[in-house]
Amino acid sequence: MLKRLSIKEYTEGILTGNRMILSRAITLTESNLPADKILAQEVLEAVLPHTGNSIRIGITGVPGVGKSTFIEVFGQYLTKLPKKVAVLAIDPSSPISKGSILGDKTRMEKLVNDPLAYIRPTPTSGGLGGVANKTREAMLLCEAAGFEVIIIETVGVGQSETVVHGMVDFFLLLMLAGAGDELQGIKKGIMEMADLIAITKTDSGNETQADLAKVAYQNALHLFPPNQTGWYPEVLTCSAITEKGMKEIWEVIEKHRALLIGNGYFQEKRSQQNLEWMYYFIKKSLEEKFYEHPSVDLYRKDIQQEVCEGKKLPINAAMELLNLFYQNRK
Amino acid sequence: MLKRLSIKEYTEGILTGNRMILSRAITLTESNLPADKILAQEVLEAVLPHTGNSIRIGITGVPGVGKSTFIEVFGQYLTKLPKKVAVLAIDPSSPISKGSILGDKTRMEKLVNDPLAYIRPTPTSGGLGGVANKTREAMLLCEAAGFEVIIIETVGVGQSETVVHGMVDFFLLLMLAGAGDELQGIKKGIMEMADLIAITKTDSGNETQADLAKVAYQNALHLFPPNQTGWYPEVLTCSAITEKGMKEIWEVIEKHRALLIGNGYFQEKRSQQNLEWMYYFIKKSLEEKFYEHPSVDLYRKDIQQEVCEGKKLPINAAMELLNLFYQNRK
Repeated sequence: MLKRLSIKEYTEGILTGNRMILSRAITLTESNLPADKILAQEVLEAVLPHTGNSIRIGITGVPGVGKSTFIEVFGQYLTKLPKKVAVLAIDPSSPISKGSILGDKTRMEKLVNDPLAYIRPTPTSGGLGGVANKTREAMLLCEAAGFEVIIIETVGVGQSETVVHGMVDFFLLLMLAGAGDELQGIKKGIMEMADLIAITKTDSGNETQADLAKVAYQNALHLFPPNQTGWYPEVLTCSAITEKGMKEIWEVIEKHRALLIGNGYFQEKRSQQNLEWMYYFIKKSLEEKFYEHPSVDLYRKDIQQEVCEGKKLPINAAMELLNLFYQNRK
Repeated sequence: MLKRLSIKEYTEGILTGNRMILSRAITLTESNLPADKILAQEVLEAVLPHTGNSIRIGITGVPGVGKSTFIEVFGQYLTKLPKKVAVLAIDPSSPISKGSILGDKTRMEKLVNDPLAYIRPTPTSGGLGGVANKTREAMLLCEAAGFEVIIIETVGVGQSETVVHGMVDFFLLLMLAGAGDELQGIKKGIMEMADLIAITKTDSGNETQADLAKVAYQNALHLFPPNQTGWYPEVLTCSAITEKGMKEIWEVIEKHRALLIGNGYFQEKRSQQNLEWMYYFIKKSLEEKFYEHPSVDLYRKDIQQEVCEGKKLPINAAMELLNLFYQNRK
């Protein structure tokens, strides 16, 4: 491991946009060593007043939708504006789906060499909560380092979308034109979280199909209840080859931001996200302690089996386990 | 309060289909007296082997969609088959929305006098978890009493749909034809839970609009990922005035049941629901203990405020509260 820096060195390095120090600080937040954890929290507290100034965008879509090529092209559109762009990824299953996400950096080879872009692959351990927390902390560090747009990529097949939705301002769902089989992989509820659906690969004669899909998604989105922010999700077509749609997507993101800042939901949403994160962490921590308890661990499987077979009422089974937990704590 | 019966009297009464005793047993499960709770659990354990033989149907829809009149007519269609039908309701907000649900029994005056039907209004206290548990227990008691179809009604605007979805075999969403403003009340995610959408009030010249809505919902449902049971949600039109659609709705419910029994998901879904209920209860119980802790209760608001204002990291705030909780338990 690298030599640790002082809080001051980390903080000043980050605030002056030193990428090497930013990377080292992110690595520090990913460490599981107790001393590193304490240091990381101190660095985060120190830069906290300088965070929150980026546009946070979540991007998801099933494997094959072209996430990496989309981000490569969209990222470069942003750096030309010019905007400083950081790309992070949440993929708790990355040991399996290696290469489907940022592991294979060659998929973003132009963006990775762009002086205004910063790409950080996902941490590969820690469970969903752990990985999400690390991504959240990386996001704050990138903001403190002056990045104006943070893109958080997820694979679109697991629980990670809900977690990402809980840390971004804008949620972009990438979809393919043929609205059939490829939907199998998208988890229920994800479409309803989208602020914008972009239909990828609208090129090479695929345009008519994409336009039809656009209408279908627009109609479907109209059937969803509008969310409380007053924003109506939009549908656009785009292409990473022709760069079609990149400008329009950015305009939609800016329009969304302007609306939410105007009506006060922008700040409220972020406050809400912070609170949800706090309560999520408390819940996880309480449950961890419970399920790791020796008696609970010992009897849970048998009790669960009885519930499955309808031999025991779920509520009685829960009471039994809770009694085991509380009795052996006293 | 009524005099309590013995476990044997309750059990025998329920198993022989004695409605008065069934009602008294349900009242017993709703009681908050410790002695009643123990007795109720014993009665439930005793009848448990006789439960699980009904078709459990959840019905939801926003106020104004015509839930009560639909259930009145659909219930009578079922009793004519003949099927014994019990109607329960979950409405944690019932003190406010009194009359919108079963409180106003006159809305189902024919069904309420039907010898094959049993209608039980919602308990009006206990929070969502408590009310849901009581409804779950009432469902089991009705099954033990020989009811073949259990309809659980919810108001369609809160969290109760997810809870009901977690206790039924089939989820029916009632919708109005004009797919516009009336959707405002439907909570996100409810449409994706539906096994069938029935468009109500398809009568009095409303037919064309209903048919258009049917096509729109069908198209929208095709955009959702199919659920793992292999069931594709359907859309039908119906009318409580002309009784149009009642037969078709029942046929869809039977087709769904046959498919799921055939592929094994019927039993698996019920086992899963039991487990989820057990884990939900454990989670609620752990959190309750945490948030009722004096130190947590004392400092939570201040800490929450700091998180909201972005002055404290959510994870640090969570750690602080957890430390307060664990320190003062030792």
